Amino acid sequence: MKLLQDRIRQDGVALNGQVLKVDSFLNHQVDAGLTMEIGKAFAAEFGAQGVTKVLTIEASGIHFALATAVALGVPFVYAKKKKAVTLTEDLYTVPVHSFTRGETFNVSVSKRYLQAEDRVLIVDDFLATGDALLGLQEIVRLSGAHLVGIGAVIEKSFQEGRAKLEATGVKIHSLARIKSMSPEHMEFLEEESLTPVATK
Amino acid sequence: MKLLQDRIRQDGVALNGQVLKVDSFLNHQVDAGLTMEIGKAFAAEFGAQGVTKVLTIEASGIHFALATAVALGVPFVYAKKKKAVTLTEDLYTVPVHSFTRGETFNVSVSKRYLQAEDRVLIVDDFLATGDALLGLQEIVRLSGAHLVGIGAVIEKSFQEGRAKLEATGVKIHSLARIKSMSPEHMEFLEEESLTPVATK
Repeated sequence: MKLLQDRIRQDGVALNGQVLKVDSFLNHQVDAGLTMEIGKAFAAEFGAQGVTKVLTIEASGIHFALATAVALGVPFVYAKKKKAVTLTEDLYTVPVHSFTRGETFNVSVSKRYLQAEDRVLIVDDFLATGDALLGLQEIVRLSGAHLVGIGAVIEKSFQEGRAKLEATGVKIHSLARIKSMSPEHMEFLEEESLTPVATK
Repeated sequence: MKLLQDRIRQDGVALNGQVLKVDSFLNHQVDAGLTMEIGKAFAAEFGAQGVTKVLTIEASGIHFALATAVALGVPFVYAKKKKAVTLTEDLYTVPVHSFTRGETFNVSVSKRYLQAEDRVLIVDDFLATGDALLGLQEIVRLSGAHLVGIGAVIEKSFQEGRAKLEATGVKIHSLARIKSMSPEHMEFLEEESLTPVATK
């Protein structure tokens, strides 16, 4: 997604080779128009798959899930990191380790909101270690629903997340795939590299 | 907002006189279309005030902030409950007590994303005790920005939040004001009651 890659080059800040700061437009202050375009891009990629529900994890996936759900005309569900007093029914709960926070926490979805007949698209802001997405994928598996695919806004392709997820056979679509970065440079993998083209 | 009140009557569950469960359509599973209508309603109420930024708090305010920001054509900012490793700059931080969680936590916004020249609309899912909204209001005050008003999706009018906020002089607009509730009944205050009409 060129619009997003350009914005990352312009406003993203690589603190080092591992940590990318995008909190001026994606995950603290948020560009609302760009977010809706991101939702349209996920819908364009997965819209033909009969998605019935978008699934994400609080907090930084929520706006992308809404944008995608609006574009697809379906509801979304966000997995919760803490049990609320209003969450009274049975839950699917899995442990997730957060690379950014350096801690492990439980993530839950009410059994009422994922059914075996659902076709689920998972979206999140980052694909890095893949731990949060693997947790969401496990929740979908527990529910018996069909996982259509995973949409990540930004992929740190130099981390192990994509390989771990691809090992499960799931289709992944990332809108900006960072091959490498530093405070001085930012290199993207082109989307074409996702599907190798046979050469003559 | 009749659409919202009808939906609360239909799908909301009052667990008792204090706790309203709306997690089938507002804060766990989310009706994307209804959320965008909620954003339009806030924009219709506050759009003439020159809002430059929408402010909310993670996690359950984020989708309403996006919907409102889209309708107004401005960015939104969500206050964070934990310090991320990517939050490296100076923060406005205030303590907030959560009625639902029964705990006090710090809420932070980067100083970069609220400026003295901003005109801020605060939105959140619930106005109940008012503690989260008072915290956001304090962050706006610390930043020197102008607070245009507060939009709450659901107000528990039988709790003290509105009175505490109104004491500060801020304009509040709630889309569904619950006068009283129980597992058997749900009574709304009509929006007309916000502005008392002189009788003959």
